[in-house]
Amino acid sequence: MKLSDVGEFGLIDRIAGIVGGGGGLKLGIGDDAAAWECDGRTMLATMDSLVQDVHFSLELISWEDLGWKALAVNLSDIAAMGGEPRFALVSLALPQDIDVEAVEAFYRGMEGLGRAHNVTVAGGDLAVAPLVSVSIALLGWAEGDSLLTRSAARAGDLVAVTGYLGASAAGLMMAERRLDLEPGVLALFREAHSRPWPRVAEGRALAKEGVKAGIDISDGLLADLCHICRMSGVSARVGQGRIPLAPGLQDAFEDEALSMALGGGEDYEILFTAGRDVMEGVVKGVECPITVIGDIEGGKPGQVILMDEMGNIVPDSGRGWEHFGSTGDGK
Amino acid sequence: MKLSDVGEFGLIDRIAGIVGGGGGLKLGIGDDAAAWECDGRTMLATMDSLVQDVHFSLELISWEDLGWKALAVNLSDIAAMGGEPRFALVSLALPQDIDVEAVEAFYRGMEGLGRAHNVTVAGGDLAVAPLVSVSIALLGWAEGDSLLTRSAARAGDLVAVTGYLGASAAGLMMAERRLDLEPGVLALFREAHSRPWPRVAEGRALAKEGVKAGIDISDGLLADLCHICRMSGVSARVGQGRIPLAPGLQDAFEDEALSMALGGGEDYEILFTAGRDVMEGVVKGVECPITVIGDIEGGKPGQVILMDEMGNIVPDSGRGWEHFGSTGDGK
Repeated sequence: MKLSDVGEFGLIDRIAGIVGGGGGLKLGIGDDAAAWECDGRTMLATMDSLVQDVHFSLELISWEDLGWKALAVNLSDIAAMGGEPRFALVSLALPQDIDVEAVEAFYRGMEGLGRAHNVTVAGGDLAVAPLVSVSIALLGWAEGDSLLTRSAARAGDLVAVTGYLGASAAGLMMAERRLDLEPGVLALFREAHSRPWPRVAEGRALAKEGVKAGIDISDGLLADLCHICRMSGVSARVGQGRIPLAPGLQDAFEDEALSMALGGGEDYEILFTAGRDVMEGVVKGVECPITVIGDIEGGKPGQVILMDEMGNIVPDSGRGWEHFGSTGDGK
Repeated sequence: MKLSDVGEFGLIDRIAGIVGGGGGLKLGIGDDAAAWECDGRTMLATMDSLVQDVHFSLELISWEDLGWKALAVNLSDIAAMGGEPRFALVSLALPQDIDVEAVEAFYRGMEGLGRAHNVTVAGGDLAVAPLVSVSIALLGWAEGDSLLTRSAARAGDLVAVTGYLGASAAGLMMAERRLDLEPGVLALFREAHSRPWPRVAEGRALAKEGVKAGIDISDGLLADLCHICRMSGVSARVGQGRIPLAPGLQDAFEDEALSMALGGGEDYEILFTAGRDVMEGVVKGVECPITVIGDIEGGKPGQVILMDEMGNIVPDSGRGWEHFGSTGDGK
């Protein structure tokens, strides 16, 4: 049987069946980060990899931005749990003919983002390989029980998102198609794609307000909402007219703008759910734009229904990014 | 400037200059694992990667053994610091046409070794890539100050090693050359290479006895001793007649046996140094073969001198495995 036959989630389920039996974990395989108790605190650990020509192209991203982004995607996983990131381990594989200056730029980019979030690169390793790939393990913690997980959404919750969506997809599309846009918008899109700013402070603020369910938007809004619904055993209904499009997106991309915001991915905003009371506190207390986009319902587990502005269901709209090319992810 | 111009250690020094400024660490870039304080315990974190056709060949190792070995090399890093490993994060990159059964065998191998050491696979990620590569981050801890580091060797210390050396190199050579050996010896060599047993219990026992300086033998005995000498600012003198050759190695490989034990690498034994009093306690108290092979001296920092059985210096004997092909590693 090939990977494409079982899909990413099918494979993860199989792996969890083999290695998921060990004890001592509060959260294991399947959430944004693993979590366990350590002297009254919840320790968090996450790991993400970027592979050349799969996740990035060296023709489209600078080495400095690559270092920034590789750390950012991991910070975002800890942010989406409401945690505080602290130490990173970095494994970098490189062809032998890479310039030393490129490697230095990579670590400079990483250091810049790390410093802004009090994250220290504590170690890692270097290896020779035909392609560039970088794996980062990030450790952090959360205080007590204030943790966002993928499995805590409940029917009756509102669904909301921090910030705006689609700018990262716009940045990638601009670079690939060499589009010519107004310089201010161009810079915003480019930065959203190459130097995403993880919502670490906002994630902690959400946890403090009592939010219990969240995920960061890496695969795409609808795909990531589907992950929450699948892990929580609930369904969701989203109004496409309520999606907060990135400023300038509609002007630049017209008909494509909405699908970029729904499915483009790599926005690294936090998608979360909460009851009405908690959500009121969030809207007042968290210092970034918060947009309520839909509701959690008790329908078919994992199902995400998109409604158009006329109140009709949009067919076949919730497809996310599947690493192994399967569509068997429960939608 | 190319990587091969500065060498692995030159590159690590440059990276440490960029990202090594963050606070809160007891040990950072350069040791077997990073270490920091957490509520009276020393937390340890290490990361190592294996890349297809650089560190392993799928023609020579089974998927189950690859899973075992990928975890073992990380357990060995924690073992070499006297720590207790606890949680692993696993990042696996794979071509899309790999069989699901192969991936399952990989995790089964990992789970087998993990279970024996109370190590739980807590999370990680999966990615598509043209080649197989696996990065593992391993977290653990040590009690209080009982920690082995690369920088604690002192002039006057004895140099010693656990177990026997050269069997892993023999296993690799047998597989590559398809050598025909006596079945018992063949199985021993093959297992030493494909399913190494990290010295976790022995590392903790060494720490308990008061040993302060250690490293695991991954690059090769002389190269790894060179790492200790470099980080401790001391030199070492080793008697080649004192090297504990793996049983059967001399018979099977004759003239090559000694150089396999000195430089073959991947033995995952612990190389350590200690004063005479501590070493006496170790030899009595630690339940595995311990062989004293030389002395730490106050000569040129990083220098390792090999003596033959006549008491003469063996020229140019201390070359280890350099990832970027440079010889500029201080020897």
